[in-house]
Amino acid sequence: MPKYVYLFGGGKADGNGSMRNLLGGKGANLAEMAGNKDLKLPVPPGFTITTEVCTYYYEHKKTYPKELKKDVETAMAKTEKIMGKKFGDPKNPLLVSVRSGARSSMPGMMETILNVGLTSKTIPGLIEKTNNPRFVYDAYRRLIMMYSDVVMEKAAGIEPKDDEGIRKQLERIMADRKKEKGVTSDTDLDADDLKYLAQAFKDRIKEVLQKDFPDDAYAQLWGAISAVFASWNGKRAIAYRKIEGIPDAWGTAVNVQAMAFGNMGQDCATGVAFSRNPGNGDPHFYGEYLVNAQGEDVVAGIRTPAPINSSSKSEHNKGEETLEEFMPKIYKELFAIQKKLEKHYHDMQDIEFTIENGKLWMLQCRNGKRNGPAAVRMAVDMVKEKLITKEEAVMRVTPSQLDELLHPVIEKASEQAATILAKGLPAGPGAACGTIAFSSEDAINANAEGKKVILVREETNPEDVEGMRAAAAVLTARGGMTSHAALVARGWGKCCIVGCAAVHVNSEEKTLKIGDKTFGVNDWLTLNGTKGIVYEGKLQMADASENAVLAEFLKICDKVRILKIRANADTAADAKKAKEFGAEGIGLFRTEHMFYGENSEKPLFALRKMIISNTTDERKAALDELFPFVKAAIKEAVEAMDGFPVTIRFLDPPLHEFIPREQSAKEEVAKSLGISIEEFDKRAEKLHETNPMMGHRGVRLGITYPEITEMQARAIFELSAELLKAGKKVVPEIMIPVTCCKEELVNQKAIIDRVYKEVLKAQNIKKISYSYGTMIEIPRAALLADQMAEVAEFFSFGTNDLTQLSFGFSRDDVGSFLKDYQEKKIIDFDPFQTIDAAGVGKLVDIGVKLGRGARPGMKIGICGEHGGDPKSIEFCHNVGMTYVSCSPFRIPIARLSAAQAAVNSAKNQKTAAKKVKAPAKTAVKVKAKTKKK
Amino acid sequence: MPKYVYLFGGGKADGNGSMRNLLGGKGANLAEMAGNKDLKLPVPPGFTITTEVCTYYYEHKKTYPKELKKDVETAMAKTEKIMGKKFGDPKNPLLVSVRSGARSSMPGMMETILNVGLTSKTIPGLIEKTNNPRFVYDAYRRLIMMYSDVVMEKAAGIEPKDDEGIRKQLERIMADRKKEKGVTSDTDLDADDLKYLAQAFKDRIKEVLQKDFPDDAYAQLWGAISAVFASWNGKRAIAYRKIEGIPDAWGTAVNVQAMAFGNMGQDCATGVAFSRNPGNGDPHFYGEYLVNAQGEDVVAGIRTPAPINSSSKSEHNKGEETLEEFMPKIYKELFAIQKKLEKHYHDMQDIEFTIENGKLWMLQCRNGKRNGPAAVRMAVDMVKEKLITKEEAVMRVTPSQLDELLHPVIEKASEQAATILAKGLPAGPGAACGTIAFSSEDAINANAEGKKVILVREETNPEDVEGMRAAAAVLTARGGMTSHAALVARGWGKCCIVGCAAVHVNSEEKTLKIGDKTFGVNDWLTLNGTKGIVYEGKLQMADASENAVLAEFLKICDKVRILKIRANADTAADAKKAKEFGAEGIGLFRTEHMFYGENSEKPLFALRKMIISNTTDERKAALDELFPFVKAAIKEAVEAMDGFPVTIRFLDPPLHEFIPREQSAKEEVAKSLGISIEEFDKRAEKLHETNPMMGHRGVRLGITYPEITEMQARAIFELSAELLKAGKKVVPEIMIPVTCCKEELVNQKAIIDRVYKEVLKAQNIKKISYSYGTMIEIPRAALLADQMAEVAEFFSFGTNDLTQLSFGFSRDDVGSFLKDYQEKKIIDFDPFQTIDAAGVGKLVDIGVKLGRGARPGMKIGICGEHGGDPKSIEFCHNVGMTYVSCSPFRIPIARLSAAQAAVNSAKNQKTAAKKVKAPAKTAVKVKAKTKKK
Repeated sequence: MPKYVYLFGGGKADGNGSMRNLLGGKGANLAEMAGNKDLKLPVPPGFTITTEVCTYYYEHKKTYPKELKKDVETAMAKTEKIMGKKFGDPKNPLLVSVRSGARSSMPGMMETILNVGLTSKTIPGLIEKTNNPRFVYDAYRRLIMMYSDVVMEKAAGIEPKDDEGIRKQLERIMADRKKEKGVTSDTDLDADDLKYLAQAFKDRIKEVLQKDFPDDAYAQLWGAISAVFASWNGKRAIAYRKIEGIPDAWGTAVNVQAMAFGNMGQDCATGVAFSRNPGNGDPHFYGEYLVNAQGEDVVAGIRTPAPINSSSKSEHNKGEETLEEFMPKIYKELFAIQKKLEKHYHDMQDIEFTIENGKLWMLQCRNGKRNGPAAVRMAVDMVKEKLITKEEAVMRVTPSQLDELLHPVIEKASEQAATILAKGLPAGPGAACGTIAFSSEDAINANAEGKKVILVREETNPEDVEGMRAAAAVLTARGGMTSHAALVARGWGKCCIVGCAAVHVNSEEKTLKIGDKTFGVNDWLTLNGTKGIVYEGKLQMADASENAVLAEFLKICDKVRILKIRANADTAADAKKAKEFGAEGIGLFRTEHMFYGENSEKPLFALRKMIISNTTDERKAALDELFPFVKAAIKEAVEAMDGFPVTIRFLDPPLHEFIPREQSAKEEVAKSLGISIEEFDKRAEKLHETNPMMGHRGVRLGITYPEITEMQARAIFELSAELLKAGKKVVPEIMIPVTCCKEELVNQKAIIDRVYKEVLKAQNIKKISYSYGTMIEIPRAALLADQMAEVAEFFSFGTNDLTQLSFGFSRDDVGSFLKDYQEKKIIDFDPFQTIDAAGVGKLVDIGVKLGRGARPGMKIGICGEHGGDPKSIEFCHNVGMTYVSCSPFRIPIARLSAAQAAVNSAKNQKTAAKKVKAPAKTAVKVKAKTKKK
Repeated sequence: MPKYVYLFGGGKADGNGSMRNLLGGKGANLAEMAGNKDLKLPVPPGFTITTEVCTYYYEHKKTYPKELKKDVETAMAKTEKIMGKKFGDPKNPLLVSVRSGARSSMPGMMETILNVGLTSKTIPGLIEKTNNPRFVYDAYRRLIMMYSDVVMEKAAGIEPKDDEGIRKQLERIMADRKKEKGVTSDTDLDADDLKYLAQAFKDRIKEVLQKDFPDDAYAQLWGAISAVFASWNGKRAIAYRKIEGIPDAWGTAVNVQAMAFGNMGQDCATGVAFSRNPGNGDPHFYGEYLVNAQGEDVVAGIRTPAPINSSSKSEHNKGEETLEEFMPKIYKELFAIQKKLEKHYHDMQDIEFTIENGKLWMLQCRNGKRNGPAAVRMAVDMVKEKLITKEEAVMRVTPSQLDELLHPVIEKASEQAATILAKGLPAGPGAACGTIAFSSEDAINANAEGKKVILVREETNPEDVEGMRAAAAVLTARGGMTSHAALVARGWGKCCIVGCAAVHVNSEEKTLKIGDKTFGVNDWLTLNGTKGIVYEGKLQMADASENAVLAEFLKICDKVRILKIRANADTAADAKKAKEFGAEGIGLFRTEHMFYGENSEKPLFALRKMIISNTTDERKAALDELFPFVKAAIKEAVEAMDGFPVTIRFLDPPLHEFIPREQSAKEEVAKSLGISIEEFDKRAEKLHETNPMMGHRGVRLGITYPEITEMQARAIFELSAELLKAGKKVVPEIMIPVTCCKEELVNQKAIIDRVYKEVLKAQNIKKISYSYGTMIEIPRAALLADQMAEVAEFFSFGTNDLTQLSFGFSRDDVGSFLKDYQEKKIIDFDPFQTIDAAGVGKLVDIGVKLGRGARPGMKIGICGEHGGDPKSIEFCHNVGMTYVSCSPFRIPIARLSAAQAAVNSAKNQKTAAKKVKAPAKTAVKVKAKTKKK
């Protein structure tokens, strides 16, 4: 026969903290606090009815096991004994709370009933005992309100008329009474009022629900227990479990616990405290309390709580007497308890306590929530204090908590009070405010005048890049998480919201419509790029400036992680920033980025000439013009990385992307090539593509125009030679994009090898240590990675394109249906943000295995957007990659995520190893048997 | 010591037909004819020097094994004995031919020297023996010409001056002599002329090559042997081997064989014959011969050869005396030999014979080449005659031979004489001629007037469909094998050439420029769509009309094949045609095809309204309008298939494809929706996509607009119910396109299930046997096919899209670089024409295995363009598909290819089984050993 009821309290407990599945989270924690030999804390005694009873209850038409009644009565007797009170006793009555408690926290989803045991029989005794009739009648009317709502209506399955439940009706009666008395607050009602209300409540209940309010303690108790079990299958709870993926079969436990009252007089109090400051990580005991109050009063904020000690003082409460001053003995006891708890749980504790007539009761303890800076500080401090290991420390900070330290944020209160205008996709984290700029030019001008602006566009294109750089933030009406705006902004760590469909931009009239509001150039907006929310007006910013502890924390991460971290960087400035953030190389240098933004005029002109060229000679002439720019740009980045490897990707985008649209620019290029504008248009038209993403780009350009490959190779080898001669270390890695077969790599390598030899000879040096590799971004390349690896010395997975092709989702167009997919739960994540481990990940896994099969120990990385996403980084670790490469601003996140991945995978391997051992034994046994025969 | 020289002749042979690797094809065949106990044919005796000698020769600095000289002399002695003549003998000299003969035929790539053994010593004896000085001197001057060219110049590695080789010089001397004598033909030169020429030749050789022409029989023989071995590494031969993939290491054999002369008088003759008519398959002995002539005279066509018998008579030669009449005894002997050979080789034989002074010599026999109709007829006949099995029969006809029977072709002579204007991609097979139509409208009008036209366009789009149907053929300047024009034309079995870059169309001026020629509406063109050639003018057509034997042959194929064959058909007419061609169902009914071409006006209008709708209500109203058309179109096709399954693919293309471009059409739609033209344009603009191939299409439409799915489901269930009630059998299969995850299938199924129940109720019937499946055309769907198969009851691989996405090749844009890829040998086939077994095929294989793993025995097919391609069909068979589906006109090819695939795979399995057995044995041995220990 299973044990259905577990006692706790009085320095003992039947259960312990590890029994969450059976006792629920709350029950297990209460047992741990009460019974653990290192703790034995003053927990109000009581007992837990297990989750198995819940399961039984639902499997047996909502009935209980026979034994339960006796078990509960026995447990109640023991609780009574500890408390020296008796449940339902007229003279010295025990009151209890009845609370749910599932395996996994489901906050607010299930029911709680307090003050169970108050009846016409016990009320007089309690009044006599407490000498506080107001307290008793207040407790009674609370019990009636809760009980009638939860037990008599909801659990009984009664559908209220006109959608007005019993609770609302009782609240109206109470409001009427206050009106009659001419008061506004509940606390202004006196004992008589409350007594009157209790009777009025019971009358109304009888009238509406056709039942008497139970006046027997045990009747109340069983009603409450059943109501808690019933609430497991309440609509809200079922919906919540569906979303959180909690199995229906788990069931809830029920905790019945002696009530402790902090509101029985001036020797009573209640409070909430943390073993360290959850707002900044300061390692001092921190908390608030209220004299003569109940827990809910602290939460409700009607009275201002006082600090428990001097380190908890703030602007608001510094005048109040601290608990340390007010009840020094109890404070000392509490201080010792929180120290003990932190040591026991190896983490900052969030505790609730009540002081009833000078006695301290611990109501709850749990690992405390904290913000980003606090999480980082605690992790670092606790390692120093040897409270936790490095591996534990890296698991204590979530990537989004770390992110808080890296970007300015909106001041909390300011954000809570603000009006949400619209929601879009959170493309670039952080926050920013500014007036509106409707064009790149306006943004640049405003910036020059020292004004903060938010660039608002339908969508951005390469011509907007300068304006984006000048703006404090970017907001677009269209585009997804990997649209142009999102990619560029994220690359700069700039606040950005994209795909904000509610936004209607009229660039010509310089107006912005959201709903029925219209904004102009002088109006302020504030963007929360971390959440994708647009606010009206100028909100206050909190600058989460550089945290000194952050560097220390990331060094801990570095010691734990196995994955290397590189940066996607296209300029010397980016490269320097990446190094500061801790990059161990550049994983993606995009040659084409020198054609966007600052100083791009001349190289872009040469590129355009090259694109519009019609013969190899024309093209070669244009490439000669382009050559010095390409060489200089790469050289600066290589130099900035100072001996770290730099992966240079050869020209990738389809050429028509760079064709000018303005007449003047067209004419200039036409003139320089000595052709008519008609001829220009004709050549440009020929380059048009129906599906440019799958068109003439990447290596395909190098196959058709070997001279383009040659120019790039020459630039890399010449600059390497020059740096080597200047005594510098260079580690260039040549990366060919968009490959789908080995022969492409062979073809391009022949060109590169030839140029290599030519440069060595011309520069009179012996060797440049470079390597030759490829992007794996086309499904076929992943499927035939063994062949690719015969030529490529390294792989870099381009999971942006790989995701596009694996799903057949065009990044530029997916906005039109991905939302529907997410709303209808067809895909529950954005595969361009987090790698699709099941599908795309399968291709990556195939690619890694085949590649390493052909070339053992091969260097393999990732350089798509996923390289900066925590879940994707974990995937990269698990699949055995050498490194991830991400935008410089994501590097701290990547360092953390890589460390967490290492810890998780070590844990999983241990678990797996354990699982494997058992069957192995069985196999041996079987063999042995066979032998005997 | 290996045996280097193999004798044949005199009713015996050292080798046999199976020794191709050692003796080469020719040597092995000569040995078989001479030595096989069932044949023992009169082959001029001789010997074969093995390919191993060739290998030795190249591995030992062009020297021979020591023993060879003696072996050759011994073999020559035996040859002399059989012939009763002696090599180099002044009185009764033996002459020999020296010929190459590799394992695999390399026609014309290596050297042959005839009449070896003629010297100043042997000439007088031969004149005396033959009493024919002209014959002898003619043979001598031929020997000198061949020998000086092949042995003394080419094999010696002498580079001729001014690119004029010795052969050309000798030919000039001969031409001068003819001029002097005032004659035009070689045969007009008499013995003295030839004697004079022989001397003049030798003088010139001495002068130019600084060497005497060898006057010793054995010196000539060894020179000739070495020259043949040397020719294995001639430039032409090396190039040929590279193209054909013949290993350099194979080497050639050398055949030395007694000369037999058909030109020694009126009791001599030479001829070529076939055991059946290679032009039509008629099962009668068929051939030609010439009295007093050499083999090359038959080939050269100077004299008209006579028929060997009455069944070989034609318009040209019916007046000539047949061999049967002229030499009845020899004819009888020859007739018996060809019968024997056909029976021996189980195939039609191509034989060469010579009659020397009344004696028949067999010079060669091999399996005869034949055209398509002949191949089919022979295969059918030989099965009936029990000469071959059904499995052998299906291997006797190549798919392209079968194709000859299915399309009109250009009359052979007419084509050979015609001027090639341009070449393009052979998109639709067959041939056609017509004047030029520059627009769809013109084509329709011309067709109405009964004129044949060829529609010539830059490229086609859906608006051209009517014109394409009206035209006899289609020619486009742009597009690849799966461009719009190619797909539509192939679907109709219409002659079509696409991507013909040399063609410059000016639709407004109605002119067509090719090179420097300009054509207008009255000019004729002829297209060979099988080869992709455009000819000038109106060529004569040969109608390869329905061959009665074809049906019989295809029935043989049906008995052998395992794959089912279905058709891609979108109309009742297509469905009927498909059934006639032998389709066992429709594998792809494209719902959207009712919006193209004939009678598309009304449904297209309703569709456009639906597309431009902005609200669900607008859209539902438009769908209600569309519903009857969709239902009617599907119903007709289902009815036409008469109980065979019909797979109906739900709406697939991106909606913006159907947005009208003409102002009037736009206005009409706008008006019907009650919106302004500006609003129309705005809505249309919103539908624009950057990469439409990966945009909002297929199931993605059904997810966003469930009402579209609902309408289609309702149409299918209603029409099925109606047909069922009318006592018909229906097997509808609902196929969802462009899926990438299981949840899409779940989502759509819920809609379809609901509609199903509604229709059953409304129609008051119990059940419609339908199945629910999906296209697998997105890589992710293939990778997660196990999950897909949990919902889908069948798969149909859409390898067009799967190829696009696996390669990242946009079909519409690949033309800009695929040619470079093919020219540079990066990809040596068009993956849209033949499935890429290595890459795309891997995905298909994964998909099939995972799908069947989750749903054993699952029905799996293919419905892309590959379904009609022989190599791809073989792949589909090997991967274990249930069926292939292709355009109706490709069905015969598919039936044949499926049968061939079945035969090949059975063969391969046998081979594999053999290979596996051997190692297994070894393993057993190892075990046994271990036991002993």
